[in-house]
Amino acid sequence: MKRFSLNQATTKHWPLPDLMAGCAAAGVTGVGLWREDVQAYGVARAAALARDHGLAVTSLCRGGFFQQNGWADENKRAIDEAATLGAPALVLVSGGLPAGSRDVDAARAHVGSAIGELVPYALDAGVQLAIEALHPMFASDRCVVANLKQALDLAAPYPAEAVGVVVDTYHLWWDDAVWEQIARAGRERRIACFQVADWVTPLPAGVLLGRGLPGTGCVELRRFREAVDAAGYTGPIEVEVFAEDVWSRPGGEVLDETLERYRIHVSDA
Amino acid sequence: MKRFSLNQATTKHWPLPDLMAGCAAAGVTGVGLWREDVQAYGVARAAALARDHGLAVTSLCRGGFFQQNGWADENKRAIDEAATLGAPALVLVSGGLPAGSRDVDAARAHVGSAIGELVPYALDAGVQLAIEALHPMFASDRCVVANLKQALDLAAPYPAEAVGVVVDTYHLWWDDAVWEQIARAGRERRIACFQVADWVTPLPAGVLLGRGLPGTGCVELRRFREAVDAAGYTGPIEVEVFAEDVWSRPGGEVLDETLERYRIHVSDA
Repeated sequence: MKRFSLNQATTKHWPLPDLMAGCAAAGVTGVGLWREDVQAYGVARAAALARDHGLAVTSLCRGGFFQQNGWADENKRAIDEAATLGAPALVLVSGGLPAGSRDVDAARAHVGSAIGELVPYALDAGVQLAIEALHPMFASDRCVVANLKQALDLAAPYPAEAVGVVVDTYHLWWDDAVWEQIARAGRERRIACFQVADWVTPLPAGVLLGRGLPGTGCVELRRFREAVDAAGYTGPIEVEVFAEDVWSRPGGEVLDETLERYRIHVSDA
Repeated sequence: MKRFSLNQATTKHWPLPDLMAGCAAAGVTGVGLWREDVQAYGVARAAALARDHGLAVTSLCRGGFFQQNGWADENKRAIDEAATLGAPALVLVSGGLPAGSRDVDAARAHVGSAIGELVPYALDAGVQLAIEALHPMFASDRCVVANLKQALDLAAPYPAEAVGVVVDTYHLWWDDAVWEQIARAGRERRIACFQVADWVTPLPAGVLLGRGLPGTGCVELRRFREAVDAAGYTGPIEVEVFAEDVWSRPGGEVLDETLERYRIHVSDA
């Protein structure tokens, strides 16, 4: 339980004060937050609220989208927000192909150089940039970084305290190379964040909102948790589920079910 | 043009005799066929019809689905049908996880051993089993083989004349390792079939029927064609597109557009 963190995206419509109070009441000690919600509430105010509830902000989602104009300023703002919240990691969703482009190699190379430009700023702020590989079904429109090896290769030129990776079960489960890459990520001290969601089918149109709570799908979640542990990761374990059917339910009810499922399917038996 | 082959799935509702006549009239010399349609028409009759139109059957879709009861007999029937049609390759869609299972490693291992059991039968029939890696978004419910490296690793224990792989642009485009794996596939003489479709978003619900005709999406199709050529592949180039909006149009019109797009986006400039 002490490593569990509720990523805010799992209970998307739960207002921030209710979410924090609900987490504290349930004995949860960490939350992963999202920029839009934090900005709407006020960044400093959200930071104070988390402190008041004894909650660590385990990550901030999300920077990245390096194909958009103004990405540098926007990512610096995101780094500042993470620092204000005390979040050790800023999750990067790197963006897809530029409009009209088919050059996925160039898009990936741009992600690498863009991250490089942010490294000094991130080091100054004490925030680790966490490159997230998204499932390959998002490669064209959300994130050209499509497996853990690509994420680690992009991180490799930069110091680990500035650039790490996210290990997310939903995005990575299908890849038989993921186990050796998790071990590599540990050796290279790159595991910035570990996120858990389950894979369920059929996928909905647009494929974004079809994830499952832990244990509802086919992912070997405990195997992933044991693999990041074996790689030396001792940080938080965020449950992050995007799903319309989960979002339609009361936040407290979802948290209770998430905690129960986390105990059964993720944490030490 | 002489390498172009129309995969029947692109013009799903075009009756087989019309499709063959339309291909012959357009100067097309190859077709990829599907078992259900061939069975409905009669296998020997379909073979004769193709011969009468001067059409080579470049592949038969599909065997595989090794998680289903009776897979061995069913795949032997498929091999027989491919032999009757003169199709050099039987495309294998290997199937997803067994119901209730999360053991993707075991499912992949089963695919490998199942293929091994079919090798003698395939060699006798002169039909190459062509392992197709499907996009990872299909890994749980259609095909646990999710990239070209996995397909080649599964093929490796068996002779190349019995077991090859499909290189399909739609399924593989996101993978930066695909270029070295295509080169490997060439060295190992495993490229049994080259199939072309484009990647377009947003994906529809169920994600099966959202492919694009060549040039409508973001895949570097010519780069793939040049890569398989550089790997020594001289065989047919099938255009295989599953898409409701394509299927709703007259077959002849789709063929004309497909040929035009093939010239612009796939074949030698």
